[in-house]
Amino acid sequence: MKKNVLIIGAGGVAQVVAHKCAQANDVLGDLHIASRTLSKCEAILASVEEKGSMKAPGLFKAHAVDAMDTGAVAQLIRHTGAEIVINVGSSFVNMTVLEACLDTGAAYLDTAIHEDPAKICETPPWYGNYEWRRRERCAEKGVTAILGVGFDPGVVNAYARLAADDYLDTVTSIDIVDINAGSHGRWFSTNFDPEINFREFTGTVYSWQKGAWQENSMFEVGQEFDLPVVGKQKAYLTGHDEVHSLSANYPDADVRFWMGFGDHYINVFTVLKNLGLLSEKPVVTAEGLEVIPLKVVKAVLPDPSSLAPDYKGKTCIGDFVRGTKDGAPAEVFVYNVADHEEAYAETGAQGISYTAGVPPVAAAVLIARGEWDVARMVNVEELDPKPFLRLLGEMGLPTRVRDAAGDRAI
Amino acid sequence: MKKNVLIIGAGGVAQVVAHKCAQANDVLGDLHIASRTLSKCEAILASVEEKGSMKAPGLFKAHAVDAMDTGAVAQLIRHTGAEIVINVGSSFVNMTVLEACLDTGAAYLDTAIHEDPAKICETPPWYGNYEWRRRERCAEKGVTAILGVGFDPGVVNAYARLAADDYLDTVTSIDIVDINAGSHGRWFSTNFDPEINFREFTGTVYSWQKGAWQENSMFEVGQEFDLPVVGKQKAYLTGHDEVHSLSANYPDADVRFWMGFGDHYINVFTVLKNLGLLSEKPVVTAEGLEVIPLKVVKAVLPDPSSLAPDYKGKTCIGDFVRGTKDGAPAEVFVYNVADHEEAYAETGAQGISYTAGVPPVAAAVLIARGEWDVARMVNVEELDPKPFLRLLGEMGLPTRVRDAAGDRAI
Repeated sequence: MKKNVLIIGAGGVAQVVAHKCAQANDVLGDLHIASRTLSKCEAILASVEEKGSMKAPGLFKAHAVDAMDTGAVAQLIRHTGAEIVINVGSSFVNMTVLEACLDTGAAYLDTAIHEDPAKICETPPWYGNYEWRRRERCAEKGVTAILGVGFDPGVVNAYARLAADDYLDTVTSIDIVDINAGSHGRWFSTNFDPEINFREFTGTVYSWQKGAWQENSMFEVGQEFDLPVVGKQKAYLTGHDEVHSLSANYPDADVRFWMGFGDHYINVFTVLKNLGLLSEKPVVTAEGLEVIPLKVVKAVLPDPSSLAPDYKGKTCIGDFVRGTKDGAPAEVFVYNVADHEEAYAETGAQGISYTAGVPPVAAAVLIARGEWDVARMVNVEELDPKPFLRLLGEMGLPTRVRDAAGDRAI
Repeated sequence: MKKNVLIIGAGGVAQVVAHKCAQANDVLGDLHIASRTLSKCEAILASVEEKGSMKAPGLFKAHAVDAMDTGAVAQLIRHTGAEIVINVGSSFVNMTVLEACLDTGAAYLDTAIHEDPAKICETPPWYGNYEWRRRERCAEKGVTAILGVGFDPGVVNAYARLAADDYLDTVTSIDIVDINAGSHGRWFSTNFDPEINFREFTGTVYSWQKGAWQENSMFEVGQEFDLPVVGKQKAYLTGHDEVHSLSANYPDADVRFWMGFGDHYINVFTVLKNLGLLSEKPVVTAEGLEVIPLKVVKAVLPDPSSLAPDYKGKTCIGDFVRGTKDGAPAEVFVYNVADHEEAYAETGAQGISYTAGVPPVAAAVLIARGEWDVARMVNVEELDPKPFLRLLGEMGLPTRVRDAAGDRAI
């Protein structure tokens, strides 16, 4: 049954979500997109139009909304008849949008953990601070809420589940590795909102090891991974959303997240952090102006969506899952390789936005089809990964597996 | 004859100026200090009191003034009966303070070139843009204005004149070298107002070579100097005030300024500059706040005056002057070595502030004594350097000379 969709947000990921919803509007219904700035939504609709992305004739409409205002979002959900909300706005709006879904009964999808602008790196598990506190209410009201259904978190959670279900008998560790081997050609840029990007790395690095939370600092623990297509890459133990749900669902396994960084990124980050320029706490200039340094850093950096036309190269994101199979130690690497230029040609966005934006649309299609319409709050590893990964393959994010038997598509 | 002094500014250099004026208040008269923030002036007076710096019983009073307001400064000059104004406020206020001196007839001293907040690195010679345009009016009104009478510019201009007068017959090059071999123990800090510090290095590096202005970029040209006390140090061709007057007074000589930088400083500077964080042009944050990035960088960095208690080590600043003597090539290095801890013990300020703050007080004493009361606008190399260097020696900044005949005090 067709279900109307409301997209919240108008950044690079929203651009991909819009194109992919349009390509699936024979399964989804009317499409709507809303953000603080109407013109950004309109620019995305113009791109959808230009690329002829709408599969079937249908509605795709832009709206302005303050997503921090639950009442306004609920009103828009009712007004548009949306039954699925894909929230790819700032991480600061997640809970107000989820509340609007609880109010209206619409399904809720997001791709990143909720953040309070005033706090960095809260107590683990992060989902316990905001999302899971609404788990009972979702169940009571029969609201489907799929948390963190981008690529990482999201697809990598499904990879972990697939490995546990199909390739191993026991799981002892899940190491998620995220490498962007692409190049944007700028002196420095973050690949998504600098404010969110830097906030990921300024706090404690939490990992789940030996059944407990371990604390490190960013860039303290690094190792080289030898990966398909992108080759040898240095990656660092990093705090990341999916560690906080996989550790709850696979408590006996070590769960770690590793992100690739070049020396240049680390140097720029280190300078900015040590000077205090990544702080979310206001400072006062000599002239008496109160300013949050991180917001000024964001203002001087390139708009990540502006990188897309020049972005070249590939990403490789996947899960090294280790454990036993038939009594012997075994390891499987479940992964995807995406290409920046192909992503841009199809959706006008670069590969990082593409990998984050396709999965929530696949999830929306599965909800519309009834396969993932679970009427409760879940993280992705709690759902059957097979229809999801199959659909992602059809939508442009194929899954491959590398283990003792070789490297192959699934 | 005693002359009342008004100090403009309340930073680290003003702190030194205040202590040194107090130590010379048998020659100077009533002392006054004024800045935008009265409490900063009062803190300086408390330090003068605490260290018992007043040589003779006398007046030392704090005032609040907006130094960007010529009328307000002129009124304060009249109110205090000041006959000498030592301007060690921000470089942005120089011309408004000079105008107040032209209005009242008070002598004017500063330690750095005037800057327009909206412009970086104007056309050479820099003094031609603001200061020298008022040269005729100073002469007409008989106003003594000694420009750039800190250490560099200032003492190094006198060193060049001394070398030309006493050690060489012809001068072919003047290379001023400024090395701070001290350590403040912080991860990063500038030694004086970060806004002024960084502005020195973001523009074109002008030097005077082969009778013309040469342009380079910062950190493009570097060389190692082997110096007394501080040893081998890497320094870089840098734009600096004194190049713009020495080139006019010694047009046949190459005039270059070299400043010492460690790799760490260069890295931090390069990151901030390339990201656009050293820009004096406003940016607008996502929230719509207009901010000048450089002012935010200043706000997050340590207050340079806070470095003083922990500062250890020495500075070496001097002039390599080359030319001929008795028909043969000759070179002389005229220099001073200052000590951060000694400066702090005496004045509560670190060595960089000390070397900049002692010379204008020496100049004020020479004006009061009539030796430098020239009733016109001059740069320091236009004045007899001998009484100045002799007095500086007595006041804590002794001059030494190193040439073929050895290394000795003068």
